[in-house]
Amino acid sequence: MDSIVKLIATLGKKARKASKSLRGASTEQKNSALLHIASNIQKNKNSLLIENEKDLAHGKTHGLDEALLDRLMLDDERIAGIIESLEQIAALPDPVGEITDLKYRPSGIQVGKMRVPIGVMGIIYESRPNVTIDAAALCLKSGNAVILRGGSEAIHSNLALYECVKSGLSDAGLDSNAAQLIDTADRQAVLELVKAYEYVDAIIPRGGKGLIKNVTEHARMPVIKHLHGVCHTYLDRDANSQKAIEIAFNGKTRRYGVCNATETLLVHKDLAADVLEQLIDLYVDKGVELRGCEKTQQRSNKVIAATEEDWSEEYLAPILSIRIVDSLDEAIAHIDQYGSSHTETIVSESITRSRKFLTEVDSSSVMVNASTGFADGFEYGLGAEIGISTDKFHVRGPVGLEGLTSQKYIVFGDGHTRA
Amino acid sequence: MDSIVKLIATLGKKARKASKSLRGASTEQKNSALLHIASNIQKNKNSLLIENEKDLAHGKTHGLDEALLDRLMLDDERIAGIIESLEQIAALPDPVGEITDLKYRPSGIQVGKMRVPIGVMGIIYESRPNVTIDAAALCLKSGNAVILRGGSEAIHSNLALYECVKSGLSDAGLDSNAAQLIDTADRQAVLELVKAYEYVDAIIPRGGKGLIKNVTEHARMPVIKHLHGVCHTYLDRDANSQKAIEIAFNGKTRRYGVCNATETLLVHKDLAADVLEQLIDLYVDKGVELRGCEKTQQRSNKVIAATEEDWSEEYLAPILSIRIVDSLDEAIAHIDQYGSSHTETIVSESITRSRKFLTEVDSSSVMVNASTGFADGFEYGLGAEIGISTDKFHVRGPVGLEGLTSQKYIVFGDGHTRA
Repeated sequence: MDSIVKLIATLGKKARKASKSLRGASTEQKNSALLHIASNIQKNKNSLLIENEKDLAHGKTHGLDEALLDRLMLDDERIAGIIESLEQIAALPDPVGEITDLKYRPSGIQVGKMRVPIGVMGIIYESRPNVTIDAAALCLKSGNAVILRGGSEAIHSNLALYECVKSGLSDAGLDSNAAQLIDTADRQAVLELVKAYEYVDAIIPRGGKGLIKNVTEHARMPVIKHLHGVCHTYLDRDANSQKAIEIAFNGKTRRYGVCNATETLLVHKDLAADVLEQLIDLYVDKGVELRGCEKTQQRSNKVIAATEEDWSEEYLAPILSIRIVDSLDEAIAHIDQYGSSHTETIVSESITRSRKFLTEVDSSSVMVNASTGFADGFEYGLGAEIGISTDKFHVRGPVGLEGLTSQKYIVFGDGHTRA
Repeated sequence: MDSIVKLIATLGKKARKASKSLRGASTEQKNSALLHIASNIQKNKNSLLIENEKDLAHGKTHGLDEALLDRLMLDDERIAGIIESLEQIAALPDPVGEITDLKYRPSGIQVGKMRVPIGVMGIIYESRPNVTIDAAALCLKSGNAVILRGGSEAIHSNLALYECVKSGLSDAGLDSNAAQLIDTADRQAVLELVKAYEYVDAIIPRGGKGLIKNVTEHARMPVIKHLHGVCHTYLDRDANSQKAIEIAFNGKTRRYGVCNATETLLVHKDLAADVLEQLIDLYVDKGVELRGCEKTQQRSNKVIAATEEDWSEEYLAPILSIRIVDSLDEAIAHIDQYGSSHTETIVSESITRSRKFLTEVDSSSVMVNASTGFADGFEYGLGAEIGISTDKFHVRGPVGLEGLTSQKYIVFGDGHTRA
């Protein structure tokens, strides 16, 4: 363990130093590094696949399940995807240095804000090797140094990808310590990293609930995290039936394993007669298991009884809970009690009721007449995302380049002194 | 101690409930509460002064020093100041509900951001009873519930002021638990408050370094804090001598006990001959003790030797450390090593050198040709401030209403589903 403490301190000092030089790096230099990383990956594709094969073989002999093995796997298509994502990030506008709100004050000084990097980020993730590149690229573009800690099951793939990052940084004349990878499988490294507040300004855990809980409990610096996605679609009394059916069906069935999937459908009692039967048939045809409140069950024998636990369950599976509510207030109260502050949508033609929902629902994304499936950095125009924050502090919802930055005040005078 | 845990849980639950009702409160209602609080204070002025007298008497018999007694003291003028500040906060624009960046995306959805309250704030402060009102008012206006914990030395004053807050909230038809005061002097209450992350979304400690350290070490939620103010004035090679002298003199001598006072003066070697002698005389005439590097001492026998500790000292007193530097880079490196990321200013006529300073100095306020004394919420146009954050996360620099809010995404569609 002592050696782990030392390792983190060494990485931390190098990262802090690199973050200072990154602060002054030009957009051109950062983009050049991103494109060099992309071409390094292209050049080393064969050896990347060989290293990835080692992880897969190790995973198979150690009983990793199919889903995990699939996440771990790299092939031509996935490597092309990684390269494309680097090119996209290079093409995004540089958030660093953006000056906004520059205004003269009565004293004669001019005050504004400048967007700046946070400093050093720590990213802890599991399985998917592409996160090594995505995280390094987003941190680099936003001017942050990063310390990466991938899953031990992907160690060979991550190391090979990281070599491409390191030489890409050097190729562009940047400090190659701007991105560093923790290369030990020792789990103690995660604990030491999240304690190292002198070196790391913020931590982003990407993975299952166990990882996020562990990081949150031990971190001594701010954590940007995504806890659960228990998203709600609420079909209001004043909904257009056709929109209601399409949005509710799409929110649940577009993809099951994603955090923006609708997990609970709330239906106003006055709309239920219009839409519920048809919706239930659509879900059942699609193979979705339905768990409903008593009133829902009274309307259909295709719905089994929901338990109290169902209302706060993130299924990530073809299962949907359904509740009929008496009012908009009851819908909002249900979301407040059982929701995870991720994404909720109202389907309604009433602007008054939509505005109330927008104002009173306290989630990272609140929608009107759109599928919860839209909660996504690309769909929102962020270009790329490093995760979705369900926290309220600093950044909520999809976290792109801007979420990895902060703003400082800048002041211009012409010899101004204060009375 | 068990009773303290219970107390905090009770306060926390009430605060959480109140924060939900505050989310939907109108600007008019919030302003009405602020003005009711002001008139309650006016009406109860005499009893406020009697309660304050109790704290002062207790302080005197328990050996509080003059400075602390002065901070504790209320009189007609200070009460008028408290009332004025309530009226100012009522007159500020309401940040909650502001919608920005609403843009159509290729999918047809329209995505933007809505400014929203954070939820429940915890404010821990010392001595000055006016913080009870300022903190309650800023939290109320920004739609946050608040749990206040003032110093035990001000308990009678704080309780009397708090009564005015509570009835002001009721008078305006708001949940009076939107602001609550911890009325026990037991220090355990601070520890339990900063652990209560289920109930409190962020903590703001306002007070000495001991308090801030204690809160930061134990808090299980984000902390908005101001650690030190070791502010630098850097007089560049290309400075206008007159501006240099005025800004350097003002930054140090305007007020000594404030966090935005200049504590270290950095002078480019090529400018020293032009300005240093005159500046030293001005400081000495004003009674400022000067502690300099070797080169500074060589220029004047009015300067004693600075120790290594001087460079990171927040004097809050008529003392100034002075260093002659060989280059702009050396000045930036000095600030990086010894500064506290609060406020730094460059005096220079060179736009290239000013831009470099603005970009590379990583402080909450970075200035050009203006006194560090301007780092202040009122001077920046925030209307009021709850403190100055030297952190990089969420909010940097003076924290006004906007710093007490967050932004959620809002999405409008017209039946849009995602492919």
